[in-house]
Amino acid sequence: MKLSILGCYSATPRAMTNTTSQVLEINNHMFLIDCGEGTQVHLRRHKIKFNRIKRIFISHLHGDHFFGLVGLISTFRLLTREADLHIYGPKGIKEVVTLQMKLADSWTNYNLYFHELTSKESELIYEDDKVEVHTIPLEHRIYTNGYLFKEKEHERKLDINAVEEANINVAYFRKLKQGFDVENEDGVLIDNKLVTKPGTKAKSYAFCSDTVYKEDIVPIIKDVDVLYHESTFLEEHAHLAPRTKHSTAKEAAKIAKKANAGTLLLGHYSTRYGGLKPFKEEAEAVFSNVELCEDGKTFDFS
Amino acid sequence: MKLSILGCYSATPRAMTNTTSQVLEINNHMFLIDCGEGTQVHLRRHKIKFNRIKRIFISHLHGDHFFGLVGLISTFRLLTREADLHIYGPKGIKEVVTLQMKLADSWTNYNLYFHELTSKESELIYEDDKVEVHTIPLEHRIYTNGYLFKEKEHERKLDINAVEEANINVAYFRKLKQGFDVENEDGVLIDNKLVTKPGTKAKSYAFCSDTVYKEDIVPIIKDVDVLYHESTFLEEHAHLAPRTKHSTAKEAAKIAKKANAGTLLLGHYSTRYGGLKPFKEEAEAVFSNVELCEDGKTFDFS
Repeated sequence: MKLSILGCYSATPRAMTNTTSQVLEINNHMFLIDCGEGTQVHLRRHKIKFNRIKRIFISHLHGDHFFGLVGLISTFRLLTREADLHIYGPKGIKEVVTLQMKLADSWTNYNLYFHELTSKESELIYEDDKVEVHTIPLEHRIYTNGYLFKEKEHERKLDINAVEEANINVAYFRKLKQGFDVENEDGVLIDNKLVTKPGTKAKSYAFCSDTVYKEDIVPIIKDVDVLYHESTFLEEHAHLAPRTKHSTAKEAAKIAKKANAGTLLLGHYSTRYGGLKPFKEEAEAVFSNVELCEDGKTFDFS
Repeated sequence: MKLSILGCYSATPRAMTNTTSQVLEINNHMFLIDCGEGTQVHLRRHKIKFNRIKRIFISHLHGDHFFGLVGLISTFRLLTREADLHIYGPKGIKEVVTLQMKLADSWTNYNLYFHELTSKESELIYEDDKVEVHTIPLEHRIYTNGYLFKEKEHERKLDINAVEEANINVAYFRKLKQGFDVENEDGVLIDNKLVTKPGTKAKSYAFCSDTVYKEDIVPIIKDVDVLYHESTFLEEHAHLAPRTKHSTAKEAAKIAKKANAGTLLLGHYSTRYGGLKPFKEEAEAVFSNVELCEDGKTFDFS
């Protein structure tokens, strides 16, 4: 599991800071999460292959989280994309993209699917044999969802010496990886655990932005490996957090602690501050394993 | 008259090339012309004061000319702008900006005026005591206008020695600058030309993008000082120009020659080419005074 931070600042793109966008690589999927203005340029700078992005998840329709979406969709068309593209986001996202396409007298030459969200409860919005994606209802000034990405259990790994010793035909290897006991060439049933080892632990990632401090999300993200939680403010501006429906670094840490998260990533910083170090310090007073997102940074959680 | 090129490439923003946007400073006005994605960031990099931009002119609703507009409008709001903002552009521009504001449950805290264009004839769309702005109907795949910016005649300059010698009261200086004859302190009528010199020549700038080769625009831009004309293609791809409703560098030069322009600026280059030199060479075969736009370049025409 790998996470590339294309942008992690709030409000408005500046000369040196980008608004929210991330690329999550998980179990061979490449998911784009939020798409602030300029995201397509940051994808290029990261040398991320556009065709690998098949699903885009938009948290909410504030500009710093989605003004780059229509440009990306248009660019995919100009690059003669053929792969389907799925967009998940709040109701209204289809209308706004469609209107811009209509005004440009243009449409995509690939299949574009919108999955508009309206529920206030967590729901499973995507599932295949590798991952599940659930919404995390957040509380912000407009309808907002975070997203929980969960790898499915990885297959068991063959202990190739043991498998050979047990005289098992190669035709059964797939079954073995799936955890089944199988018969060997002599018709003897072999206990799976004797010839396989556990697969890599299935990982999970929760993206929670933008939101006021909201304990209701804890059960949804319980035991998540990596939690990205917005931390727009430091303690000195804690009074602004409930008013603007944002969180402080300390509040992000409280959620991480309650959810028993593995690692907490901070981001969505207000650009009023001179540096990021105080965000880490304030969060670490509550929760020990804190990392700072920075534009252009990549985290490897494998 | 000063022109800053924020972006001058066609199609889609890339890691090192920006889509169309320019800032024209003319007779104390600062006009933004087109607004591709990322324009607000390029404005910041140019250190252009956002509050000085009071009028934005959008040629057409293809993304590479206007996907940065809604972000800029939102950022103006976040920066607590108070000055009015006027947007000129094709019909539909109001709906698309308004929809995005509505979805974000947001509106501007400054007055935002849309001037939607539908005419296929050149029209005067803005005038004050300093400048006039006219549309230049272009022919592209969708409804498109270029814009002609014309300074009004500059005031005459006082010949301060002659004025003193003629014994004219300071109260009449304004009248003198406006070209009137005035009475001196002794009641003698003084011929304006004896005590003033001609003001700086009034300048004009024509922005023509995107368009197929279209001689109809020549009468509108006749004798323009500076002509920006799109040159998407080189001669080797001349066959693509009519099909995509774009122009070649040579065609841009033909228009400049027929219009008796002072200087021709080339831009809106396709990103398929390795360098810009051939654009200049091909245009110079037809018209001598050719300059290449480049992202970040500023032209001073004073």
